Amino acid sequence: MNPDISKERENATFNVEKLTYILDGGIEKTKRRREIQSLVISDPDFQSEDLNFLTRSERYEAAVRKSAQMIVKLRKYGISDPEEIYCYKRLYKGNSHEAMGLHFVMFLPTLYSQCNEEQLKKWAPLAESTQAVGTYAQTELGHGTHLRGLETTATYDPATQEFVLNSPTVSSIKWWPGGLGKTSNHAIVLAQLYTQGKCHGLHAFIVPLRSMNTHMPLPGVVVGDIGPKFGFDEVDNGYLKLENVRIPRNNMLMKYAKVDADGTYTKPPRDKLTYGTMVFIRSMIVGEAGLALSKACTIAIRYSAVRRQSEIRPGEGEPQILDYQTQQYKLFPLLATAYAYNFVGQYMNQVYHRITGDMSQGDFSELPELHALSAGLKAFTTWTASSGIEVCRMACGGHGYSSCSALPDIYVTFVPTCTYEGENTVMMLQTARFLIKSYRQASAGHRLSGIVSYLNESEFRLQPQTVSSRATLVNGNNLQSLVEAYKLRAAWLVEQAAKSIQQELQRSVSQEDAWNNSSIDLVRASDAHCHYVVVKLFAAKVGEIEDPAVHSVLSTLALLYALQGITQHSGDFLQAGLLSAPQLSQASQTLKQLLVQLRPDAVALVDAFDFRDEMLNSVLGRYDGNVYEHMFEWARRSPLNKTEVHESYHKYLKPLQAKL
Amino acid sequence: MNPDISKERENATFNVEKLTYILDGGIEKTKRRREIQSLVISDPDFQSEDLNFLTRSERYEAAVRKSAQMIVKLRKYGISDPEEIYCYKRLYKGNSHEAMGLHFVMFLPTLYSQCNEEQLKKWAPLAESTQAVGTYAQTELGHGTHLRGLETTATYDPATQEFVLNSPTVSSIKWWPGGLGKTSNHAIVLAQLYTQGKCHGLHAFIVPLRSMNTHMPLPGVVVGDIGPKFGFDEVDNGYLKLENVRIPRNNMLMKYAKVDADGTYTKPPRDKLTYGTMVFIRSMIVGEAGLALSKACTIAIRYSAVRRQSEIRPGEGEPQILDYQTQQYKLFPLLATAYAYNFVGQYMNQVYHRITGDMSQGDFSELPELHALSAGLKAFTTWTASSGIEVCRMACGGHGYSSCSALPDIYVTFVPTCTYEGENTVMMLQTARFLIKSYRQASAGHRLSGIVSYLNESEFRLQPQTVSSRATLVNGNNLQSLVEAYKLRAAWLVEQAAKSIQQELQRSVSQEDAWNNSSIDLVRASDAHCHYVVVKLFAAKVGEIEDPAVHSVLSTLALLYALQGITQHSGDFLQAGLLSAPQLSQASQTLKQLLVQLRPDAVALVDAFDFRDEMLNSVLGRYDGNVYEHMFEWARRSPLNKTEVHESYHKYLKPLQAKL
Repeated sequence: MNPDISKERENATFNVEKLTYILDGGIEKTKRRREIQSLVISDPDFQSEDLNFLTRSERYEAAVRKSAQMIVKLRKYGISDPEEIYCYKRLYKGNSHEAMGLHFVMFLPTLYSQCNEEQLKKWAPLAESTQAVGTYAQTELGHGTHLRGLETTATYDPATQEFVLNSPTVSSIKWWPGGLGKTSNHAIVLAQLYTQGKCHGLHAFIVPLRSMNTHMPLPGVVVGDIGPKFGFDEVDNGYLKLENVRIPRNNMLMKYAKVDADGTYTKPPRDKLTYGTMVFIRSMIVGEAGLALSKACTIAIRYSAVRRQSEIRPGEGEPQILDYQTQQYKLFPLLATAYAYNFVGQYMNQVYHRITGDMSQGDFSELPELHALSAGLKAFTTWTASSGIEVCRMACGGHGYSSCSALPDIYVTFVPTCTYEGENTVMMLQTARFLIKSYRQASAGHRLSGIVSYLNESEFRLQPQTVSSRATLVNGNNLQSLVEAYKLRAAWLVEQAAKSIQQELQRSVSQEDAWNNSSIDLVRASDAHCHYVVVKLFAAKVGEIEDPAVHSVLSTLALLYALQGITQHSGDFLQAGLLSAPQLSQASQTLKQLLVQLRPDAVALVDAFDFRDEMLNSVLGRYDGNVYEHMFEWARRSPLNKTEVHESYHKYLKPLQAKL
Repeated sequence: MNPDISKERENATFNVEKLTYILDGGIEKTKRRREIQSLVISDPDFQSEDLNFLTRSERYEAAVRKSAQMIVKLRKYGISDPEEIYCYKRLYKGNSHEAMGLHFVMFLPTLYSQCNEEQLKKWAPLAESTQAVGTYAQTELGHGTHLRGLETTATYDPATQEFVLNSPTVSSIKWWPGGLGKTSNHAIVLAQLYTQGKCHGLHAFIVPLRSMNTHMPLPGVVVGDIGPKFGFDEVDNGYLKLENVRIPRNNMLMKYAKVDADGTYTKPPRDKLTYGTMVFIRSMIVGEAGLALSKACTIAIRYSAVRRQSEIRPGEGEPQILDYQTQQYKLFPLLATAYAYNFVGQYMNQVYHRITGDMSQGDFSELPELHALSAGLKAFTTWTASSGIEVCRMACGGHGYSSCSALPDIYVTFVPTCTYEGENTVMMLQTARFLIKSYRQASAGHRLSGIVSYLNESEFRLQPQTVSSRATLVNGNNLQSLVEAYKLRAAWLVEQAAKSIQQELQRSVSQEDAWNNSSIDLVRASDAHCHYVVVKLFAAKVGEIEDPAVHSVLSTLALLYALQGITQHSGDFLQAGLLSAPQLSQASQTLKQLLVQLRPDAVALVDAFDFRDEMLNSVLGRYDGNVYEHMFEWARRSPLNKTEVHESYHKYLKPLQAKL
């Protein structure tokens, strides 16, 4: 054990184990998680060559092997609870993705939720036994978020009782679905349904892509890998061009909409049935943001405790870089953010389960709020976590660029969450739509409930001209007063956005143009709303903690999180009159003191995330802090070191001398 | 040609060609650049497989081949002017790096500047003929920025008149030098010189690493590749462990310091002789930031003109995504930033040449200012450009993740500039040291000259308590008044940082601790100083433009750049009393209008960068806008598509079914 990092652990002010229980949601959950993780770590199949040393094709192959192994092992161990499966897979996959991820996350759930009984009897056994391996083919080369724009067609032919599927243009080629390129032999294809000469909009069809015997593409199916990407090397995101592909009528998913044998179309009873899955995945991503940022903080903070560099006081030797104020200022607010997102992830999980419970009772009343919240928080947390991972990476200096730090992998594996499952700016605007609607309802005298109830409080609808005369509300050491300040900022920015729309309308542009011309303000309002929610939930979580030492360190983190946001968005708080210039200076001072206060607990706070070395897979983030010897050992395994002299020497360098 | 992008070009308000001349520094330079680029593009050797489809070893080999070819071709074409060489290589390399880059950028220049005459006679011909291929080995596994901390030793043995080089610890292993792993047969090694029992600090030694005949490592030399990284696949950054490696006395670079045959040491006459190279490279990086961001903006803006998505007005079809205000808000300020950095790069180039002229006359007076400026601007521009490239990438939606967009390559190739040639936070603190020193001189009544002369103006040393009563100065439509506002902000933040140090000292901590405890404020002050310099230089450049249409569009860009910075740092401007809350609202309004104003010129403004498609190497950024068909064509060449059925199917997927 590196003595610097041992000393850090000795100096912690709280019991790490107790904090781990809180992060897991209870001591029993921690125990079960560790049991499952031990299953993985003691498994000889889990040991494998570092993926960073493999070619893309080898990485893909390794991912297929792991996916296949996981399915067998989960059944062997009898792990079937979704949370426990998630926990098992999370460790088994490491910092990479599952080759058959879409089969489990989209193909199977869609079959379960959209097949009628007869269909389910046929497809569930095929898919569960992986005879049918499937994916979900929605986005096209020229079409993403805007589903109505999709061009793929499914035209019903009553003569043969078949649908004929086509990709009529280049831009209609299905593009991006995970596992589509090489792995899947089926896909659920979203296509415009035509029957009896009429288009009925998007519907889902089960399309066989490859022979279930030979895995060769079927006639009319042009399918393949979309090529190398920023990360996701191990996933065969694919393209799919359909050329008069015929499928039986019964391959349309018919639980809700129907096409009869003669081509008569029956539309589904309600529109928002697939809403739930989307909301669920976005809620999950919030937790993923917490996880990814926790990993990055663990690596950067442990490394900063063992790395010694430059000098602060002459003659005293090189200090741990964690002693530099600038390093603390980079890492501690991100550590606080990681904690915040872990708690928000827990909350979203609970709310989702409560609301789906209500929905199964026919109560959909909270769905719009959850939809808006999950959209905005997904965008808010993934943006911050992504840029935060890069800050952590660069805080490790040169070594943060080495794949052995794991930070490049963590970044490229996580950053796509900013784009998939709803592009972040679009997500922010969806939340804004809910906020503006709520604001207008409140203005019209309706009483709002739930998280937007702050828009009720008419006293907070500030007029710009009176702002400077308002009494300011913030006490930089009082978390609750900071939550209030965030709330008022959100209310103020929602109002500003609503006013911008109003002003545009007065210039007699259309509703739609007014919305577009105000979208900068709308995104800003959503961002402030989400920030308020996160601060509020973090403060609420801290309030629940009973252990005094843990309560104390989490309070410091929550305060740091809130103050950091205020100093970074100080313009908003000053402009809205929520803070005076001297108060802002005081907030910066307090923030510096909090950094000093957290310094002795920094390593313990990342230890509490309880990542096994096998899960981080980072030489810089090793628990024992023995970084340099293991970097050297890792580097020697680099494929370029297989021979002492690379063949390019003989091919190009040696001949070059003769030419000069 | 895609009709959307043709229409964009028709609607431009200015002559693109004229703006290109300004960016190149004159019509003659544009002509010469194009001549050189045509040499590359018409060269059959330049055509090669997309690097994204290759393994790391193949990428390295391709880079060695290109490096070797370039050397031969440059001689063949008689291109010897450094700027022209740079222009040739820039295109030839594409978005990747040169395998032999360090040989030309560090090994040869160090030989030229630090060999004595006798040494130069021996080494220059060897290096110029590439019999000796070299690199510069400074950083160690445990030591980066802090040169005094380096541990490698060179101990003089008068018995044999040799130096004995050693890596005494794991942390002393040389780590990161480009081309060290496999390419170089020599390195200039920085080591602590010991002679006659005494350490004389860091000196440079020419160390043969590999046989000049067989390329095999020499006895005692443990050398290899440090393994895969975030980008830089094609470069063999290496490690070097020295175990009693003996080199002749004459392999110490002796132009300045000397060790005689008997071991007597003579120290160099002055310390700062290598200063110049460092300053030069940092100045160059500012231009590189402009270049990288220009490329990213070109790709994102052209793609945004051909991509159609969602709808603004019902029934009007999908608009170009460049019509969304949020998309404009992401891209246009970055476009303005790219222009700003191109102009600042030009300026730094000119200043560097002027000052080196002065230095060759023995006048070193401006060096500290240039040193401080290049350090801060290097950090300021690389941080913004790096995060800006990611914004551009994500503004392209899912397709920005595909390697065919070139954006992932541009990011990973550029982002290391934040860390190499001086870690950015360290750079900011070096600039801060100069600012604080200047501030103290001004406070002590000395008259400052040069870029920091604004610290003279004592009327701008605001007292916080009087801030709110100051008259505000900003007119959001007047560029010059914005330059003033940035100047006052910088002055205010330098003063705040100086006061923080003062307060710390009053708490009777040491100078060094006071500095460390104020370093957040110091970085902030440096950042504001650099921001002021960039706005000022941009405004000055606009003032030089004679063509009215070009002048008009560049004025709009400069105004956008300045206003965007103000809205993003609005807290500073409000806190310092330089802006009132209503003025800030007005600034946001003006900013929105500028986006509308720039919309018709956006494509023309990126066209003016005049990147050939062969240089961008981006399917999304194609000049003709024909994106989708070429994406499909590119994807089909993906290595995973070489066979219809990947071998992992037979190995893992097929057998899996039997197990379930």
